[in-house]
Amino acid sequence: MIKVDLNSDVGESFGAYKLGLDVEVLKHVTSANIACGFHAGDFMVMEKTVAMAVENNVGIGAHPGFPDLQGFGRRQMKLTPEEVKNLIIYQVGALAAFAQAKGQTLQHVKAHGALYNQAAKDPALAEAIACGIKAAAPDAILLGLAGSEMIQAAEKVDLKAAQEVFADRGYNPDGTLVPRSQPGAMIHDPGIAIPRVVRMVTEGKVTAVNGEDIDICADSICVHGDNPEAIEFVKSIRAALQAAGVEVVPLASVVS
Amino acid sequence: MIKVDLNSDVGESFGAYKLGLDVEVLKHVTSANIACGFHAGDFMVMEKTVAMAVENNVGIGAHPGFPDLQGFGRRQMKLTPEEVKNLIIYQVGALAAFAQAKGQTLQHVKAHGALYNQAAKDPALAEAIACGIKAAAPDAILLGLAGSEMIQAAEKVDLKAAQEVFADRGYNPDGTLVPRSQPGAMIHDPGIAIPRVVRMVTEGKVTAVNGEDIDICADSICVHGDNPEAIEFVKSIRAALQAAGVEVVPLASVVS
Amino acid sequence: MIKVDLNSDVGESFGAYKLGLDVEVLKHVTSANIACGFHAGDFMVMEKTVAMAVENNVGIGAHPGFPDLQGFGRRQMKLTPEEVKNLIIYQVGALAAFAQAKGQTLQHVKAHGALYNQAAKDPALAEAIACGIKAAAPDAILLGLAGSEMIQAAEKVDLKAAQEVFADRGYNPDGTLVPRSQPGAMIHDPGIAIPRVVRMVTEGKVTAVNGEDIDICADSICVHGDNPEAIEFVKSIRAALQAAGVEVVPLASVVS
Amino acid sequence: MIKVDLNSDVGESFGAYKLGLDVEVLKHVTSANIACGFHAGDFMVMEKTVAMAVENNVGIGAHPGFPDLQGFGRRQMKLTPEEVKNLIIYQVGALAAFAQAKGQTLQHVKAHGALYNQAAKDPALAEAIACGIKAAAPDAILLGLAGSEMIQAAEKVDLKAAQEVFADRGYNPDGTLVPRSQPGAMIHDPGIAIPRVVRMVTEGKVTAVNGEDIDICADSICVHGDNPEAIEFVKSIRAALQAAGVEVVPLASVVS
Repeated sequence: MIKVDLNSDVGESFGAYKLGLDVEVLKHVTSANIACGFHAGDFMVMEKTVAMAVENNVGIGAHPGFPDLQGFGRRQMKLTPEEVKNLIIYQVGALAAFAQAKGQTLQHVKAHGALYNQAAKDPALAEAIACGIKAAAPDAILLGLAGSEMIQAAEKVDLKAAQEVFADRGYNPDGTLVPRSQPGAMIHDPGIAIPRVVRMVTEGKVTAVNGEDIDICADSICVHGDNPEAIEFVKSIRAALQAAGVEVVPLASVVS
Repeated sequence: MIKVDLNSDVGESFGAYKLGLDVEVLKHVTSANIACGFHAGDFMVMEKTVAMAVENNVGIGAHPGFPDLQGFGRRQMKLTPEEVKNLIIYQVGALAAFAQAKGQTLQHVKAHGALYNQAAKDPALAEAIACGIKAAAPDAILLGLAGSEMIQAAEKVDLKAAQEVFADRGYNPDGTLVPRSQPGAMIHDPGIAIPRVVRMVTEGKVTAVNGEDIDICADSICVHGDNPEAIEFVKSIRAALQAAGVEVVPLASVVS
Repeated sequence: MIKVDLNSDVGESFGAYKLGLDVEVLKHVTSANIACGFHAGDFMVMEKTVAMAVENNVGIGAHPGFPDLQGFGRRQMKLTPEEVKNLIIYQVGALAAFAQAKGQTLQHVKAHGALYNQAAKDPALAEAIACGIKAAAPDAILLGLAGSEMIQAAEKVDLKAAQEVFADRGYNPDGTLVPRSQPGAMIHDPGIAIPRVVRMVTEGKVTAVNGEDIDICADSICVHGDNPEAIEFVKSIRAALQAAGVEVVPLASVVS
Repeated sequence: MIKVDLNSDVGESFGAYKLGLDVEVLKHVTSANIACGFHAGDFMVMEKTVAMAVENNVGIGAHPGFPDLQGFGRRQMKLTPEEVKNLIIYQVGALAAFAQAKGQTLQHVKAHGALYNQAAKDPALAEAIACGIKAAAPDAILLGLAGSEMIQAAEKVDLKAAQEVFADRGYNPDGTLVPRSQPGAMIHDPGIAIPRVVRMVTEGKVTAVNGEDIDICADSICVHGDNPEAIEFVKSIRAALQAAGVEVVPLASVVS
C-alpha cells in the first residue's frame, strides 16, 4: 500500500502573538514542523505545541530557521556552513528536549523559510544542515525539497531523508519550484491541486510549468493551517488520498 | 578520601564579544557551567566551549539564565514557574545537543545570575528549575547553592543534587550569602579565602559573618576565570585542596 | 467647555505577527500610544502606524516599554533608574524620528505595561521616565496614571503632564487601581463603565471599590482596540462624552 | 587650507561586553560613528559614548546596521529598500535623542558593515539609506564610500554627502575596495599607509592595486581603535596630515 505523510508548520506563535490554527491543523496532518524560537515560536509555545502533537499522534519535528524573528526567517542571510550546522544543533536540541519531556523522540527535522530555500540549491549549506541533524539527533529524518541538495546531503552523511512536495506550487522541468515571482508559481484551485498531488503520490509524476511530465518522489506533502480555507484544503487532500488507496501516516512510517 | 569539584562559568562570549579566560580556566577546574544563549553565549560559542571542556576532561554543565543578554541575566525578572520550567528545558536541550554532538552527556545544570539567586529563596522557582532539568535531562545533577531551596527541590523531584559553596563570599548564620551590598559580602584576600574553603570541604564548617561557626556542605566550589588573578586563585585553591588530601574531581564523581 | 482625550495603545504588531484593530480604533481615538520596538512593534510597524495616526489627525505618542518582546513588556524587570532613563531616550527618539519623517512632532509619551505599573508607585523610576522624556522630547507631554508618582515626577522636572483614567478598572480609595487579582478590578458592563467615565470627566469624581467617592483628574481616557467589542465600546464612550457636552480632542488640546 | 576628518567606529560595547578603546580613540579622531543597538551598542553604551564624544569635541554620528547582534552586522542580509529606510530612521532617531539629551545635534550618519558594503554597490539600498537619513535628520551628512552609490544617492535626495577613504585598504582601478579575500586588500605597513593617505588628502590621488594612479576624494579617513597599535596608527596619521599642512577637523567643517 502506498504511504504518504502530511506535514504542516506549527508552533509559530510568539509571546502575546498568535499565528496559525494549530489546534485544527494538528487534527488532520501526520507530522508537525515545530518552530524552535529563532524565526518564530518560544519556549512556552514549543511546550504547548509538542503536547498538542502528542495528543493527536502527530510526528514531532523540529523546524529550525535563521535567527530573524522580525523577518520570520524568510529574509536571506549569509551564514557560514559552520554557523548553519551549529544553529541546527541548537534548535534541534531545544525542541528535542520538549519531546523528551513528554516521553517522545524527535521524528524529523525540516529547515524553515530562507534557510530551506538556500539549502535546497547550495550543497555546502545542505550538508551543514544534515551534519547538524546527524550531530544532535542521529535517528531523526531530514525532510527536504524533493530532488534537492538536501536529500543528497542526508545520504552523504548517512541520515534518513524524506522528500517533500507541495500541493500548491508549480514545478520547473528540472524539479525545482517555480519562484513566487514568476507565472505558474502558485496553484490556487483545489480542483487542480488535489488531483495533482494525488498523482504525485500514486504515480510519482507531476506536470511541470512547461507542460512536460517529470518524475517526483513524494514522501510527504506540505500543507498549511493559516486560515479556515487552508484547513478545508488539508481535509480534502487527505480524503482524496485515502479515496485513491493511499495510507496517510507519520513520516517515520513512510521512510523506514 | 574527600572529594570536591571546582566549577566555573564559561562560554560567556557572544558573537564578536569575548569574555573570560576560558582556555585557561578550563585547565584547572573539573566542571564547566556553559552559557546557553539567553543571558550569554551563542551557538558558535557553545560548540567551541563544549569542545574545550571535552579536551580538558571537564564535566559539561548547562548554565541557563533569564532571556536578558543586555543585563547578562543579572537583572531580576518576574517569570512564572511554568515559564522558568520551559526556559530550563529549552536551554538544557540546546546545550545537551552540543554535548551529544561530541559523544558526551550533560553532567549537570546550574542556574545563572538572578535566576539562581531568586530560586535559592523561592521554592516555586526552585521546583520549576528542578522539574525542567528532570524533564530535559533526568540523569543530570542540579548544582545549587548549599542548603538552599534548590537542593530541596531537587530531592522533591528525585533529581541528583550537588551543593555549591563560594570561596570569595561571606555567609549569614542561616547559611545564605551576605548580599553584595552589605559589609562582609566579599572575601578578597586569598590568604583568608583559601584556608576557609579548604575548611568547608574538609570539616563541613564555615565562619559566618557574625563570627559563628555554621555547618555547610561543599560538593563543588565556584571559581572564576575573568582575569589572570582569578586564574592564579583557582590554581592556588586546587593546590591547597590537594595538599589537604582532598581529591578534586568532576561533579559526577562527587555525587553519585 | 470640558475637554478630554481618548488614548489607545497601537502599533503592537511585530514582523509577521498582527495584533490589534489599529485601522478601526484610530478612527475613534484622539491620541495614539505607539509601541517602539522593545516590548512590541518594529521599525516597519512604527512607520505605518505613525502614518495612520497622521491620516486620522490623532496625536502621536511614544509607548516605550521594557526590552521584553516575549513577555510583551508585562513582566516585571528590575532596572536601575539610569537604565530606565536611557531606554526612554532611545525609544522616544526612535518614534520621534518616524513622526519627524511625516512632518509631525511627538505629542506625548506613555510608559507601557510593567514599566508603567512599577513607575506609578516608585518615585525613582517615575523620575527616570520623566527625565528621559525631558532629555529626548522636552515639549512632549508625559501621560501617566492619574494621581501617581509619574504625575509628580513630571512636575518635578518641569515637563507637561496629563492624567490618565481607565473606564474599565476599579479604583482603591487612595486613587490607585485595584490589582487585577482582586475582586472589583475590572468593570465589564458598559452600562456601568460609560456613565462612570463620563462622571470622572465632568465631575472629577469616581466611586472607589469600597463605595466611597474620591477625586480624580481625567485628562485622558485609556481605551482598547483589541477586538470588535472594544471598538464598539470606544464609540459608545465617545458618543456619551459628546452627549454630556464634553469635547473629545487630542491630549495637546487638553493640557496646554 | 586643506581639511580632512578622521572618523572611527565607537560605542560598540554591549551590556557586560566591552569592545574597543573608545576613551583613547576619541582623543584623536574628529568624528565618531556610534553604534545604535542593532549590530552593537545599547542604550547605556550610547548615552556614555555620546557624552565622551561631546567631552572630546568630536562630531556625533549615527552608525546604523543590520539587526544582527550575533553577526555584528557583518553578515549579508537581504532586506527591502523600505526595510532599510525604516531601520535607518529608527536607529538615527534613537542616537539623535542621546545627542539632543546633551544639547547637541547629529553631525552625520554612516551605515555599518554589510549594510555599508551592500549599499556601496546597490543604488536602491543606497537611496533607501539616504531617504532614511533625510527623513530622520535632514541636516545630517551622509558619510559613504568615496565614489560609491551612497554618494550619488545623497545628492539625489538633496542630502549633504562626505566621501570616506581607508588608509589600510587597497583600491581597484574603478575606485572600489579590493575585497578582503583578494591579494592587496590590506595595507598593514604604516610606512606605506600613512604617506598614501596623506597623498589621497593632499593630491586626491591613490595608486590602485594594478599600479595605476586614480582620482579619489577624501573628506574623511576611517581609522580604528581596537587595540593599542591602532591608536598609535591614528596618532601617526594625524601628525603626518598636520605636518603636510592639512587641517584635521570634524566632518561638518569639511563639507559645509
